[in-house]
Amino acid sequence: MKYVIIVKPKKTILDPQGKAIKKVAERYLQNKIKNIRVGKYFEVEIDKRNDELIDKLAKNVLSNEVIEDFEVLKE
Amino acid sequence: MKYVIIVKPKKTILDPQGKAIKKVAERYLQNKIKNIRVGKYFEVEIDKRNDELIDKLAKNVLSNEVIEDFEVLKE
Repeated sequence: MKYVIIVKPKKTILDPQGKAIKKVAERYLQNKIKNIRVGKYFEVEIDKRNDELIDKLAKNVLSNEVIEDFEVLKE
Repeated sequence: MKYVIIVKPKKTILDPQGKAIKKVAERYLQNKIKNIRVGKYFEVEIDKRNDELIDKLAKNVLSNEVIEDFEVLKE
């Protein structure tokens, strides 16, 4: 079973990496970009379905609750 | 218009970051994990739809063609 976990900075948190990429992208594309936010993407494969395990993994290992939100998608 | 761009290491490329996280996760969860691959996640907002621009951004700014694949999703 394959899961996808997306971890991204909370809406209220400043995202300096996104800001930096936005600046470079605008210069490169010669075009205005409204916003870029950067997060992490994980593909996790386990033998059989175990949503609870994946939730625990996302919450405690892959993300930092204080500054990040996560989302679990099944593939 | 909001786009999501996923950049991940090509299947044939070793993913040492994924391997390291897999090891930690298995120890933490006391459970076998088949595989973890790590990629990057970008949310890009632009004023109006421009698939070509986003494709150029993903290809030339956000990813490295030699070792990474990218995927563009519309939201």
